[in-house]
Amino acid sequence: MRNFDVEKYLADGKTAYGQRANIEALADKLTKRGFHNIVIIGIGGTWAEWSPVVQVMRHYTDLPIYLENAAELCVRTDKRFLTKDSLVITASASGDTKEILAAVKMCKEMGIEVAGFSKNGETPLAKELDYLIANPCGDCEDSYLMFFLLALKLLHNRGEFPDYVKFADQMSHLHTNLVRIREEFEPKAAQIARAYAKEPYNIFVGSGTLWGETFLFSMCILEEMQWVRTKSVTSADFFHGTLELVEKDVPVFLFKGEDEYRELDERVERFCKQHTEKLTVIDTREYRLEGIDDSFRVICSPMILTALVTERLAAHYELNTGHSLKFRRYYRQFDY
Amino acid sequence: MRNFDVEKYLADGKTAYGQRANIEALADKLTKRGFHNIVIIGIGGTWAEWSPVVQVMRHYTDLPIYLENAAELCVRTDKRFLTKDSLVITASASGDTKEILAAVKMCKEMGIEVAGFSKNGETPLAKELDYLIANPCGDCEDSYLMFFLLALKLLHNRGEFPDYVKFADQMSHLHTNLVRIREEFEPKAAQIARAYAKEPYNIFVGSGTLWGETFLFSMCILEEMQWVRTKSVTSADFFHGTLELVEKDVPVFLFKGEDEYRELDERVERFCKQHTEKLTVIDTREYRLEGIDDSFRVICSPMILTALVTERLAAHYELNTGHSLKFRRYYRQFDY
Repeated sequence: MRNFDVEKYLADGKTAYGQRANIEALADKLTKRGFHNIVIIGIGGTWAEWSPVVQVMRHYTDLPIYLENAAELCVRTDKRFLTKDSLVITASASGDTKEILAAVKMCKEMGIEVAGFSKNGETPLAKELDYLIANPCGDCEDSYLMFFLLALKLLHNRGEFPDYVKFADQMSHLHTNLVRIREEFEPKAAQIARAYAKEPYNIFVGSGTLWGETFLFSMCILEEMQWVRTKSVTSADFFHGTLELVEKDVPVFLFKGEDEYRELDERVERFCKQHTEKLTVIDTREYRLEGIDDSFRVICSPMILTALVTERLAAHYELNTGHSLKFRRYYRQFDY
Repeated sequence: MRNFDVEKYLADGKTAYGQRANIEALADKLTKRGFHNIVIIGIGGTWAEWSPVVQVMRHYTDLPIYLENAAELCVRTDKRFLTKDSLVITASASGDTKEILAAVKMCKEMGIEVAGFSKNGETPLAKELDYLIANPCGDCEDSYLMFFLLALKLLHNRGEFPDYVKFADQMSHLHTNLVRIREEFEPKAAQIARAYAKEPYNIFVGSGTLWGETFLFSMCILEEMQWVRTKSVTSADFFHGTLELVEKDVPVFLFKGEDEYRELDERVERFCKQHTEKLTVIDTREYRLEGIDDSFRVICSPMILTALVTERLAAHYELNTGHSLKFRRYYRQFDY
């Protein structure tokens, strides 16, 4: 596979999974400390990565959980939910995301502790955190894995996710599955990128547990790293405007999930099959997870999708657009 | 003004405002009934219209308020917040929006009462509702006005919006203001539409109280009614991907608001001024509201914006694209 080092990937995966004990110890410490609600702070890609975690948590608990955009949290005047009794969690691999840093500093000034993920203890974010978990490799599936381990251990400690130990044990099989799944998808990735990388406009549709990744791939990968024009829309909203733009040569990408929102995705699929010849459906259900119970598939679905699109499909877009995934003209290039 | 009948508009405005007594009586009845939280159900344009109402309510109360997408509410499995102690409110002018009807029927099956707005008592929605407020005219500012009257009277009854009577009294001046504001904007509307109606791709940015209207104008007007390709993004998220697509001939529309998110809009403005020659800023602050206190301007800002863009700018887009605002190829044309 182009630009993919299987051995390094599996070693990185071991490192990420190797944080399990630290994450569980942190969850236990936070449980002991106590909290009335959970406030998760992200922006852009990190907001998107927390989105399915929050959604899965809400499935298992009625503890109030807030997923906040860091920049908006800083300015909003209705912050009554953010108190010393909140458990505040954030993440920034680089540790220098401006808005995250500002939001964390604001929490600290309010006397509120913050737990978070960053690549190591030396980043500006790490230095502000009360509790740090190192996320040194930074593959999106590792972020998902670590966020879910923390989130579900916290629920487990409340008696709300009794299968936690089984789930966490089975996550040791995640990365080998995601290598095989990448290999299975590889010809499709090459073909999709060849067909669509130079399209002037692309519609991305997803929902529920996959909405975050739909938003992330469209905005943080294609727009930011490939200068490809996109519109991302949820499967429910698609029918309230965007549908009118579909015609036979308009590319529509549907990311089909495995949760209760699937029927909304299926409605989009039925419609688009009739009205565009350029429909690409990526259905996480088509990819087996060996050694992982079916009851954990919804949790794993964004990890599968990120391996398929944010990593593999992006690599093939780059090959076809000739635009390096590392090149930016504005983002983090100067102050704005 | 093209396709705008001032007399009819003012008469419709009187009819809408004339519902004040009914709305207040309903708020009092619902207050007497009691509720533990408020669940508002919308989809597409109605979701967007409720969005600023919910945001303003959250500024004044810490009562839990949920803004739900009707289609997603029907399928989601984590509905613990939706109980017989919820105050459920919805709206559909036509009264036959499929997803709204399904969500309301689901509530009824759960034994939960629903209050809502529809054009008259004969619509399918009206027949399902326990409490109906007629919204016969259907201009977006009338929906905003009625939704805010209900929402803020409910808060007033809880002692959380003491200025309600002053606010509601002053709303009698709304429509005459919105006629003058339309007239002031008219040359600009003509010029913007002439310049951009045929652009192949357009970025729309807004935030906070104006995010709903940004989303609505981009998706429910330009995409649905004009087949114009758009990307809408919040001022905070703009800097996490979409910014890389800005170049000197890419049109960016910034809807600048008057709430605490304004500084996020200003950051977008500073950036875009340097990187595109096609920046259009529509700032509600530039439009006076006579006879309405400044402290109510944030509440009125989506009403101003909808008059400017969803009504006037759309009329001028139609003139330049030659595509009737009434024409759809798919939406509500057949089952899907």
